[in-house]
Amino acid sequence: MTVADRWLLPDGIEEILAPRARQAEMLRREMLDLFDRWGYELVIPPHLEFMESLTAGVGHDLELQTFKVTDQLTGRTMGLRADTTPAVARIDAHTLKDKGPVRLCYVGSVFHTRPASLGASRSPIQLGAELYGHAGVESDIEVISLMLETLAAVGIESPNLDLGHVQIYRSLVEYAELSEDQEQKLFDALQRKAACEVSELLADWQVASGTANMFKALTSLAGNASVIGEARALLKEAPEAVFKALDQLEMIAGKVAELYPSANLYLDIGELRGYNYHTGVVFAAYVPGQGQAIAKGGRYDGIGRVFGRARPATGFSTDLKTLIELKALLDLKAQTSEERMTIFAPVDADPAVVQKLRRQGQRVVCQLPEQETDAAGTGCDRQLVCRDGEWVVV
Amino acid sequence: MTVADRWLLPDGIEEILAPRARQAEMLRREMLDLFDRWGYELVIPPHLEFMESLTAGVGHDLELQTFKVTDQLTGRTMGLRADTTPAVARIDAHTLKDKGPVRLCYVGSVFHTRPASLGASRSPIQLGAELYGHAGVESDIEVISLMLETLAAVGIESPNLDLGHVQIYRSLVEYAELSEDQEQKLFDALQRKAACEVSELLADWQVASGTANMFKALTSLAGNASVIGEARALLKEAPEAVFKALDQLEMIAGKVAELYPSANLYLDIGELRGYNYHTGVVFAAYVPGQGQAIAKGGRYDGIGRVFGRARPATGFSTDLKTLIELKALLDLKAQTSEERMTIFAPVDADPAVVQKLRRQGQRVVCQLPEQETDAAGTGCDRQLVCRDGEWVVV
Repeated sequence: MTVADRWLLPDGIEEILAPRARQAEMLRREMLDLFDRWGYELVIPPHLEFMESLTAGVGHDLELQTFKVTDQLTGRTMGLRADTTPAVARIDAHTLKDKGPVRLCYVGSVFHTRPASLGASRSPIQLGAELYGHAGVESDIEVISLMLETLAAVGIESPNLDLGHVQIYRSLVEYAELSEDQEQKLFDALQRKAACEVSELLADWQVASGTANMFKALTSLAGNASVIGEARALLKEAPEAVFKALDQLEMIAGKVAELYPSANLYLDIGELRGYNYHTGVVFAAYVPGQGQAIAKGGRYDGIGRVFGRARPATGFSTDLKTLIELKALLDLKAQTSEERMTIFAPVDADPAVVQKLRRQGQRVVCQLPEQETDAAGTGCDRQLVCRDGEWVVV
Repeated sequence: MTVADRWLLPDGIEEILAPRARQAEMLRREMLDLFDRWGYELVIPPHLEFMESLTAGVGHDLELQTFKVTDQLTGRTMGLRADTTPAVARIDAHTLKDKGPVRLCYVGSVFHTRPASLGASRSPIQLGAELYGHAGVESDIEVISLMLETLAAVGIESPNLDLGHVQIYRSLVEYAELSEDQEQKLFDALQRKAACEVSELLADWQVASGTANMFKALTSLAGNASVIGEARALLKEAPEAVFKALDQLEMIAGKVAELYPSANLYLDIGELRGYNYHTGVVFAAYVPGQGQAIAKGGRYDGIGRVFGRARPATGFSTDLKTLIELKALLDLKAQTSEERMTIFAPVDADPAVVQKLRRQGQRVVCQLPEQETDAAGTGCDRQLVCRDGEWVVV
């Protein structure tokens, strides 16, 4: 490796320099304080854990995304977390042992072996909140509301909010008695909204036409709140669980629309985001110009089971790196408002005066001997000067 | 792996739970704001880098401490950073290209394959500051001062501060024309202050008695500022570079003693901390009851050379996890003062009132339907109640 490329960073691994890093720190504080005001307690889960803990109950996809290292102390395989949720679920299930609702939040880097999508970061700073111990729609509404408040804090007042419910597809699969292999094939086709492929698969498998029509309906049942009514009509032969899911979706959509009228709700009855992981409502926020969801989440009841205590759970997460970019794009003032007053202290300035100014909260940069740059050259807008034996800021 | 041990964390990998995590967050803010007031700009270097960048110019020890993973996109080896300094040096050398002094600071997890010492964490949260581009003692003094201010912020006003200078031993080795192998053997014996072993080694190698005596003196030249005078006498045959180092040590010790009279200075002429890495003054802070240094640093000129630009550099680092523990030990008030007012909002509370309170900065926890716990059970000290149609906090 030559000098010329020793500074190269791996693809998708970013560093944040000044002044952007300070902006990211300020946004982090704002977000954690917001979560705190909603009663979410901060936890700092480890970055490295044994693989069994990291991927317990969250599916195969996460395992492929996880960097693995050998623990030299035990010879066991450890993983670098690719998602913070399993660790937070472990904390709720094992460590806290609380019976009532538990609200937890976190912020920290996660690492992906490959970008989750084209051009995505492999080292997002995941920021999220989770509500454990309550199975009702009220906790889903609370978590979606907190996600919308989080986006509002960076200036995104009108995101597109996609809402779905994985129990609809899951219940239909059970009703149609599809095999696991069939379930997966149909899932792939539905995710792509490939209506023709869905029809062909169901015909091949000789699924009864009434049931097949319900699966086909999933490819087109999407839009505003009126799709719930359409879904009730088109899926009228479906098992009870589908109607329960539609009721939940209706309640959540109605309440969110009331609380955040500026959000653009989009209901997608065939939405299958995080199907292997989620168990109820799923949601994702989008903004124009960003192909990927900028924040997402859903209900994942029972995640603590592998740690000895199955608990209802719902939560969301986002990426601080994405938020800081969006904030900068949306609010160009952010770049200039961060310019703070900085006092330049010449090399002979009284250290006691410098100390006093700093303790008062002032930013003071000391000149070093033989340093040529003056106040202006170091980006300072004020200067400490000696007048009649007194050091004053001018 | 059974349910019972799936929650086990690897040795030396800790998580931080509530309320300690919030205290750590507050301390982090306090520290970064302190660094900011001193003009140190925050940078957020990546956790993962190619091995060549991570270990460039910092010696073999760090390479052994570094967890390695394969980059699936390139097949190259990446390392999980075991120390933040190389990345910050790369940022100064390559990205910033500033000619004058550059002050940078950082905070973030680092990872060690094995604990650096018995019982040490393998995942400290490293917090540090670096000053690039100035070779004089003034920048060493600034960095030591900032380290002492950092400790003072957690209540440690009188740490033991060890000061040494690696050029003393290095110059004597050169003067005695020792081989690399001999240099390493003698280094091992000196680090253990094993005076007899030092004598034996030097006798075996037939080192001239005058030179041998100077090496032997290094095992005992330690104490208060008066050892500088003793060193000048005992090392009087030493090359010029030794006297230059002693002069620097004297200036730094004198100024630090003047600025921070409560710190307990301990000068150790044979101190060899970070010998493979440092090039000038080295320092470390200790407190009673902690076997390891709680903060340490030194000068490491030329570290940017491998990235194409050798720059003078001096800096220090500490571990936020250690600081939060020390703060809790020293200041038991910290645990109670963090109890904030929390308002319990019953399930039927007006969402608009809750939103308003939160926007005012209040902490409000919403009751969820069928939740049995009341205000007291959730740790809330206030409650939102409806009186004559108005929601009020009581």
